[in-house]
Amino acid sequence: MNYPFADRMLKVHKSFIREILKVTDNPEVISFAGGLPNPLFFPVKEIAEATAKVFEKNGPEILQYRTTEGHPQLREFISERYRKVRGLDISPHEILLTTGSQQGLDLIGKVFLNKDDRVLLERPAYLGAIQAFGIFEPTFTMVPMLDDGIDVGVLSEKCRALKPKLMYAVPNFQNPSGITYSDSTRRAAAEVLSENQTLFIEDDPYGELRFMGEQVPSVRSYLENHTILLGSFSKVMAPGLRVGWICAKPEIMEKLIIAKQGSDLHSDSLAQWVAYQYLLDNDLDEHISKIRAAYGRQRDCMVRMIEKYCPHDIKCTKPEGGMFLWITLPDGYDSLDLFEHAIKQDVAFVPGHPFYVDGGGASTLRLNFSNSSEERIEEGIKRLGKGMKAQMVGIKMDHGIEI
Amino acid sequence: MNYPFADRMLKVHKSFIREILKVTDNPEVISFAGGLPNPLFFPVKEIAEATAKVFEKNGPEILQYRTTEGHPQLREFISERYRKVRGLDISPHEILLTTGSQQGLDLIGKVFLNKDDRVLLERPAYLGAIQAFGIFEPTFTMVPMLDDGIDVGVLSEKCRALKPKLMYAVPNFQNPSGITYSDSTRRAAAEVLSENQTLFIEDDPYGELRFMGEQVPSVRSYLENHTILLGSFSKVMAPGLRVGWICAKPEIMEKLIIAKQGSDLHSDSLAQWVAYQYLLDNDLDEHISKIRAAYGRQRDCMVRMIEKYCPHDIKCTKPEGGMFLWITLPDGYDSLDLFEHAIKQDVAFVPGHPFYVDGGGASTLRLNFSNSSEERIEEGIKRLGKGMKAQMVGIKMDHGIEI
Repeated sequence: MNYPFADRMLKVHKSFIREILKVTDNPEVISFAGGLPNPLFFPVKEIAEATAKVFEKNGPEILQYRTTEGHPQLREFISERYRKVRGLDISPHEILLTTGSQQGLDLIGKVFLNKDDRVLLERPAYLGAIQAFGIFEPTFTMVPMLDDGIDVGVLSEKCRALKPKLMYAVPNFQNPSGITYSDSTRRAAAEVLSENQTLFIEDDPYGELRFMGEQVPSVRSYLENHTILLGSFSKVMAPGLRVGWICAKPEIMEKLIIAKQGSDLHSDSLAQWVAYQYLLDNDLDEHISKIRAAYGRQRDCMVRMIEKYCPHDIKCTKPEGGMFLWITLPDGYDSLDLFEHAIKQDVAFVPGHPFYVDGGGASTLRLNFSNSSEERIEEGIKRLGKGMKAQMVGIKMDHGIEI
Repeated sequence: MNYPFADRMLKVHKSFIREILKVTDNPEVISFAGGLPNPLFFPVKEIAEATAKVFEKNGPEILQYRTTEGHPQLREFISERYRKVRGLDISPHEILLTTGSQQGLDLIGKVFLNKDDRVLLERPAYLGAIQAFGIFEPTFTMVPMLDDGIDVGVLSEKCRALKPKLMYAVPNFQNPSGITYSDSTRRAAAEVLSENQTLFIEDDPYGELRFMGEQVPSVRSYLENHTILLGSFSKVMAPGLRVGWICAKPEIMEKLIIAKQGSDLHSDSLAQWVAYQYLLDNDLDEHISKIRAAYGRQRDCMVRMIEKYCPHDIKCTKPEGGMFLWITLPDGYDSLDLFEHAIKQDVAFVPGHPFYVDGGGASTLRLNFSNSSEERIEEGIKRLGKGMKAQMVGIKMDHGIEI
């Protein structure tokens, strides 16, 4: 039969990335595609111990229905950590635990977006945000990224002309580009958003994964009442637990809680209690410092290998943290063609096109460095470099350029 | 500042029930309010053992990002159980694991509902469905419940006149009324829905909790391609794990998966793996038979106490399973007034009004019997009966009726 789907479903598609991930399940494939943390650093033993303790201490109570807001002490822990590590004053009542911070995006879409509302995105933008917000049928406008963050000139122009309701951004080690906003960009962007009454959605899943340079203040510190801040334990503990959160002012929080009640009553309690017990019994900073050191080495290796094996006319970001770097091929080159070539050589990455809502990005690609050893990074980039060179030779020959 | 909320949020409110639950946190209060399973029957030890085994066997893999569809073997288990216990042929590919079956409702709303689409509900209806669908701004129409299920005459009339897109129902031991559809009502309703191309959302969280009478076939068995079936381990294992599921035909499943990708990528994996390991190592039927026996005793006790302590002109359903029974006070009596009286006597229930979208239900109330011992049921109903009698005396005096 023909099922009567809602209009909103006619425009959205399966995540290209999640479809790619299925292809790369094959262990032969060197995959720089997924946005996966390195499972070597999942504290399996410690989480198992924390879980055993939770069952001993909390008996049946964690298996019962719980409040929508989530584990009270875990929210206190997050509040306290913001104060200590980021200098942010966020009360536990301003924190709602969610099923990964992806659910935070869905709830924000529900609570704020009418059809055709204007939403600003970075160019390129995090695909999960495009998907989560896209369901509510806003009109997206992209603002280009420069080396030190969003292009504030264009942002200002778009804000004045379009009066957007929301702007979504990942100011630290952006997914997909790896770019970090400088402090002056943050201040300037905050001023523009505040003037135009545009609410800022600050997504910060990678903020603690800085392996070089200095920490920069959260945009929220310049725009407190206008910012909804999202966080997650996925990248510093384990994503499978799906423990993320939203920080928002009480008037917004009230609506988010109503939306979450309808969405799932509450997130899994076992994972919340386990995460809290893990945090009580272990030193998160020490754990994070191990991840940082490893990701820093892997990023260095990938940058070196790109310089060694890839054509010199590609552009490549050099992130100070996070899990991704971003390549721009010379104009006219197509990363989808490159993907087809690479996958035959058992190397995968994400072509940049899905990170654009305006049809751009054909010559860009995202590489993940967090989930591959240095050996595999070297071998993978070597193969990818060959693919790039072959593609470039092919294109130059097509165009009759002497090579 | 004034935040620019979406129009859909102007019409929805915090769950009245979840607000009541906060009041009843006090252990002095005898609460028949929550829709809570009895924690005495949570298999805490077995779930703890299953969890330890999961960490031993599955190491870091369950802590990584996983597929949106959920744990493959758990979906096979559910498929096989439908075949064995219900005689339903549902492939594992037609099953999507969700964060409780509440998330299933949200995803169905996302995938099907445009603003002003017509949705049929039972009268009274499950509050969580009103909330989940309400977010997408459909127009609800309620169809009265009779002793053996939906009023098929009215259903037929409404279907012909309104051509509703969806109908949502809980045919087994309905929440809130406790009513179960007879087989003939199911067949007749299925025929009406099929003729009118109305998609049926069959929510079945309590189906396995029958403590008297004979099992009746799922409506899906009469309306396979037109039915989306929802299930959950919340009532037979533990709700805190939030493991529910949706069964739908492949064309629908594809859209549900896209919607879930945007909503949270996937539900917590630890809970899914733990549930599966628990099911491998334990006899679910044996466990359920203990729950059934206890709930049956508690239901009997509550019915007896109502007959003993409550005025004889109230009406009360006598459910064959599930967790709730439903009281209708004589016309003109108000269960909100009764609630205020009862809460002073440390007894809580849910006034019926929130289960109606048409302003009705003022004289109705829901009582939960699954989460109270027989002693507390006797004491609670005694106090409630006194309250009812006092209220009735008061009303009759107000109206100058001789008593």
